[in-house]
Amino acid sequence: MRGNSLGSIFSLVTFGESHGPAIGGVLDGCPAGLELKLATIQAELDRRRPGSTPLGTARSEADQVEFLSGIMDGITLGTPIGFFIRNTDARSGDYDHLKDVYRPGHADLVWEEKFGLRDHHGGGRSSARVTAACVVGGAIARQLLATEGITVDAYVSRVGEVVLEQPVEDLDLSRRWSDPVRCPDPATAARMAEVIDQVRGEGDSIGGGVSCVVRGLPPGLGEPVFDKLDADLAKAMLSINACKGFQIGSGFGAARLRGSQNNDVFVMGVRRDPRNSTAEYTVESGAIRTETNRAGGVLGGISNGEDILFDVAFKAPSTIAMAQRTVNTKGEAVALEAAGRHDPCVVPRAVPIVEAMTCLVLADHLLRQRTSTLRPAPTGR
Amino acid sequence: MRGNSLGSIFSLVTFGESHGPAIGGVLDGCPAGLELKLATIQAELDRRRPGSTPLGTARSEADQVEFLSGIMDGITLGTPIGFFIRNTDARSGDYDHLKDVYRPGHADLVWEEKFGLRDHHGGGRSSARVTAACVVGGAIARQLLATEGITVDAYVSRVGEVVLEQPVEDLDLSRRWSDPVRCPDPATAARMAEVIDQVRGEGDSIGGGVSCVVRGLPPGLGEPVFDKLDADLAKAMLSINACKGFQIGSGFGAARLRGSQNNDVFVMGVRRDPRNSTAEYTVESGAIRTETNRAGGVLGGISNGEDILFDVAFKAPSTIAMAQRTVNTKGEAVALEAAGRHDPCVVPRAVPIVEAMTCLVLADHLLRQRTSTLRPAPTGR
Amino acid sequence: MRGNSLGSIFSLVTFGESHGPAIGGVLDGCPAGLELKLATIQAELDRRRPGSTPLGTARSEADQVEFLSGIMDGITLGTPIGFFIRNTDARSGDYDHLKDVYRPGHADLVWEEKFGLRDHHGGGRSSARVTAACVVGGAIARQLLATEGITVDAYVSRVGEVVLEQPVEDLDLSRRWSDPVRCPDPATAARMAEVIDQVRGEGDSIGGGVSCVVRGLPPGLGEPVFDKLDADLAKAMLSINACKGFQIGSGFGAARLRGSQNNDVFVMGVRRDPRNSTAEYTVESGAIRTETNRAGGVLGGISNGEDILFDVAFKAPSTIAMAQRTVNTKGEAVALEAAGRHDPCVVPRAVPIVEAMTCLVLADHLLRQRTSTLRPAPTGR
Amino acid sequence: MRGNSLGSIFSLVTFGESHGPAIGGVLDGCPAGLELKLATIQAELDRRRPGSTPLGTARSEADQVEFLSGIMDGITLGTPIGFFIRNTDARSGDYDHLKDVYRPGHADLVWEEKFGLRDHHGGGRSSARVTAACVVGGAIARQLLATEGITVDAYVSRVGEVVLEQPVEDLDLSRRWSDPVRCPDPATAARMAEVIDQVRGEGDSIGGGVSCVVRGLPPGLGEPVFDKLDADLAKAMLSINACKGFQIGSGFGAARLRGSQNNDVFVMGVRRDPRNSTAEYTVESGAIRTETNRAGGVLGGISNGEDILFDVAFKAPSTIAMAQRTVNTKGEAVALEAAGRHDPCVVPRAVPIVEAMTCLVLADHLLRQRTSTLRPAPTGR
Repeated sequence: MRGNSLGSIFSLVTFGESHGPAIGGVLDGCPAGLELKLATIQAELDRRRPGSTPLGTARSEADQVEFLSGIMDGITLGTPIGFFIRNTDARSGDYDHLKDVYRPGHADLVWEEKFGLRDHHGGGRSSARVTAACVVGGAIARQLLATEGITVDAYVSRVGEVVLEQPVEDLDLSRRWSDPVRCPDPATAARMAEVIDQVRGEGDSIGGGVSCVVRGLPPGLGEPVFDKLDADLAKAMLSINACKGFQIGSGFGAARLRGSQNNDVFVMGVRRDPRNSTAEYTVESGAIRTETNRAGGVLGGISNGEDILFDVAFKAPSTIAMAQRTVNTKGEAVALEAAGRHDPCVVPRAVPIVEAMTCLVLADHLLRQRTSTLRPAPTGR
Repeated sequence: MRGNSLGSIFSLVTFGESHGPAIGGVLDGCPAGLELKLATIQAELDRRRPGSTPLGTARSEADQVEFLSGIMDGITLGTPIGFFIRNTDARSGDYDHLKDVYRPGHADLVWEEKFGLRDHHGGGRSSARVTAACVVGGAIARQLLATEGITVDAYVSRVGEVVLEQPVEDLDLSRRWSDPVRCPDPATAARMAEVIDQVRGEGDSIGGGVSCVVRGLPPGLGEPVFDKLDADLAKAMLSINACKGFQIGSGFGAARLRGSQNNDVFVMGVRRDPRNSTAEYTVESGAIRTETNRAGGVLGGISNGEDILFDVAFKAPSTIAMAQRTVNTKGEAVALEAAGRHDPCVVPRAVPIVEAMTCLVLADHLLRQRTSTLRPAPTGR
Repeated sequence: MRGNSLGSIFSLVTFGESHGPAIGGVLDGCPAGLELKLATIQAELDRRRPGSTPLGTARSEADQVEFLSGIMDGITLGTPIGFFIRNTDARSGDYDHLKDVYRPGHADLVWEEKFGLRDHHGGGRSSARVTAACVVGGAIARQLLATEGITVDAYVSRVGEVVLEQPVEDLDLSRRWSDPVRCPDPATAARMAEVIDQVRGEGDSIGGGVSCVVRGLPPGLGEPVFDKLDADLAKAMLSINACKGFQIGSGFGAARLRGSQNNDVFVMGVRRDPRNSTAEYTVESGAIRTETNRAGGVLGGISNGEDILFDVAFKAPSTIAMAQRTVNTKGEAVALEAAGRHDPCVVPRAVPIVEAMTCLVLADHLLRQRTSTLRPAPTGR
Repeated sequence: MRGNSLGSIFSLVTFGESHGPAIGGVLDGCPAGLELKLATIQAELDRRRPGSTPLGTARSEADQVEFLSGIMDGITLGTPIGFFIRNTDARSGDYDHLKDVYRPGHADLVWEEKFGLRDHHGGGRSSARVTAACVVGGAIARQLLATEGITVDAYVSRVGEVVLEQPVEDLDLSRRWSDPVRCPDPATAARMAEVIDQVRGEGDSIGGGVSCVVRGLPPGLGEPVFDKLDADLAKAMLSINACKGFQIGSGFGAARLRGSQNNDVFVMGVRRDPRNSTAEYTVESGAIRTETNRAGGVLGGISNGEDILFDVAFKAPSTIAMAQRTVNTKGEAVALEAAGRHDPCVVPRAVPIVEAMTCLVLADHLLRQRTSTLRPAPTGR
């Protein structure tokens, strides 16, 4: 009821404030028998960490996840996987000056309106730090998806006015982790980094966009009415801090197009078996495919076997070094100047979070699909 | 699990295929003691009906809602409100030619992939007709919201390349119901109607956009992590047929802006008491407000007392009179020409659905808010 | 939130007051492809009806179920199955004298405390009539269970001091429907009928017990911690009107026994394949079985493949012809004498309800089990 | 879906295996602003611990709870309360001999049938140790209930054939914690202790019963159809390890009684205000009460303001020192003799668990009740 859970079968509940003892979660519903690579989970967590890119904040968080249950000898037991991450760098004294002032763009004031009190230590439960628990859950979800050959890859596609123009099929997505901006095209990434440096130098911040592609997803995932696959993805993305918009396939562009322009016609084609990636030409012959993919891989809320393609818009971080007008708890107008260093742009660090949230949604729908027919297909395919 | 329910406390489950005996729903969780205006519910339903605007399809659906429970002498009992609408114009024979062919842009094929079978009679459960049940639920939600002075108004803001440029505060929203396009600015509405007429004449269809404003919402609604108010709105919008995108406040535009441009600074201001609309100058003095509203009324997932502002993108209807290539159930390439008349543009009829889905989300969060503190405020205010 | 739903995947929401327009429900989550025998559903509903036994009330209810969705040509679509039953014999005027008085043993008063108002027409939502919707849902659940060879049979095992002494394996359960008391042993049934006649003659009522056996249930159903199979059965039984107790296996008797007496030791044995009932000697050789079944088929909340055995206690109907002291809405002491005829004993009519609730719980757990492992077994076996 | 959560608003998810790194939970939905006495929570946990009574097992578990989130300066924030308890005494090597054998009465075998594997270290997730997380959640629930003057007290009412005969109103319940058997009557407690000593000496174990009384509960809690207050209590009790039965009020005895014997007639009476326990004669005059309480405080699933009274039956612990026949994983008949010391009777340690589960159910219904009417009463009263 307090909105700390996501998913109906593959279900994650998270807990934790940014400057309390720890953050963490409980992942319930992961099937028994999954061999987990624990080091990979930690590696995904490291990508989200502040300081993981030279462009992020200087705050150093160890972010070491400890698993408490649900795993025996690296194999999931089918029981809830409890985990937590200690807040080792929680210098909460740094935030004392914020106790009596409402930061523009932050949730300080609404928190008081909602709960009658708030944890003023650096955002409390509204801090982006709590997404670390999603990254842990998402990393486990990804390993479940991998058993079906499903991959999820996000990347930065916009910083301010700098846009990545290439379509996803022309990108080498493996490059994005080696670039601090998490943009797979080196030239565009360089221009993005320049913009970020510039706004940081001016004590300002900048918005951006993240795009995501899901490959190998079997057709049939998602529900026809309320829990459409794209509806659940939209909710998951808007749950990420600073997210202001979501679109799938042709998205807002579809509002400009005619049916004859936007429809994807059906053709007979081939589809690679995602679970057999080593064989170069392994194909599933005779599949019905769409000639184009303006739908973004979803028809009527249900996956159609094509790539899932969606975009997410993020606002600029609200904390800036420039002085801002605001109001304190006495209702007096005051000027606020942020102390310390802060992220000038969230999208590089949002990339692993977009992936994690996507993996969580897909893993849930993969399991939900097992109960749609009288005799379940083993993999939903 | 099959995604036919929405909401956690104020909860609607819907049922029905477009050409089965009936569609309907059960609204559970409406508090006892609400005086319902049943005629208003029917009037809202009539706005969604095909034929409600001269621009829609010619199919005539009576859409008479019958309530089966939960109401005594016009007052809600606190028990589930069951209702249904008979499908009186269900000439399912019209659809026999579609039994063996997959319509581009429709869910025919994915339905077979998901459930192993499908109802080929006009879309079955994937038909936009099933949103009529949402409109009934939303109309009840609206009457609950009205007891707190909360209003929800959507309108068409784009058809193809024709865009409504005025900001919402300059619009007379009451005008939209008298215009067949559901756009409150007569000049823009005329240009939109022209575009719709043109694409219809060409056997084509066109996409568009709907905008929505919520006024009088108290601060504090929405949950800080997964069930953010905007995340739940995004999911509700993406649940509407043909929706491809959602943005709140500055939305995708925020991706271009700097923090110093996008932040809404806090100021002391006044706020009208939405429950006392008769008194011209009744104000709640001394409220902390934002000087601008680029956030769209939500900070950190929680309402801040400003107007909620969001936009929804819809693709062009997939059914067009022009011949389209596709594939039949034998895997043969065939040409499909739609028989009969179909909506050339969904946005005019999407307006009441956007409002209904918004009302459902807000009513749920209004009730959820009652359990956030030790001693609940009577209205969440 | 208002407690009108049961089940997480195979999920039934019900609606309706005893004297409103109709009662009904929406069954969501039934897998696609199930061939339904609709006449059987109606037949099960007829068994619950007042007047179905000469021992019941004289009120005649047609109880004709109408299905509105989710079924095409007798096959489930995987979409929600909406249905309702009109209240044709709803002479609500009969209940006007109850508007201002609180009937002992009934929910009149607590309803006002909870909702601030109540439907005084014959119990409203608290009437046992609403269980008819459960019987419809349960009858569909039973047809799903039948595809796995699972059977559910309940019977009256006690009326007042008359107890059915035979163990279930010595009973011919098929006999129970031909007996008005729903007790499978003719001699005991005759003694029970005598007691019921006697208390009715005295204007009084009498309590009783129902026992239930589930056969053919595969091992592995039920969850280890909170949603134990027996815990969900207990909740389902206590949800039936007038139920005051539940026990499984040795039940309250287990509180008297030693471990050495109550433990069921494991032995190698054979188990009939419930899906192959025609072959006389078809067995699954080499199964691990328990030599006795004091556990009642559940260990640690999970089915062990043995028969599920449980008992349910029902109080005497609260409405009796004898005058009873009570209080009216003004707080004045008054005497209440029930008009009309009422059931002197609920257990005969509770039998189909116990079965229906059991079927609903089992169908849900059968589907839940499909997501417990990485590669699901087709049937949970 | 895997059944590790309880409650809809006040909701607890637990995790942990008996011999993994830790057990714990996340309590979501506790209202903001509750002042927690953390030492009291630890004290309640200590009561459940093995070794807390001289009659329990010798295994010493520190059971020190650590809170990770949701509390600031002892006040709940309205955010999820994460907590865990390390398994310090987890000598998992002790259980190696159980890897290949199925213990009678335990879940070893069904676990393999359900999940395809099991944690053989002392019961894993099926161990009673995991109820420690419920005790933590229940202790917080109790402090929420205390703000409304609600108290929950359980006690041992049966061990084998020794029964506590006094009605609850004649007992001094405060005595039960000083007695190792947790029975408030010293003479009966002494006879129970004797029985326990005797069965332990014989290498056997014994069943028993726990009774519980809830005082000060306002009328109106519980839902009329599926989530009846007694149905949710039944489910919560059957969720406790070794529980085999539940009854409320006259319970199974009601099956023997006539309506004229079992009905509680309504009378005008007085009711103490539970929130004002210091004033000796503070009464709420003019309340409608029942003259007797055979209903056990619940009518039609809803609390009526009288004391809630229910009984729970527990079987004897399945682990006994006497040799038992069983089967190993190769299907060979073997004899099993339990090593080490084990509880000869669970009921003394079940008392705090029964209380905790009851508190969790009541806290949830207390919050649920806030949304039943248009204008919520501040306390559900």
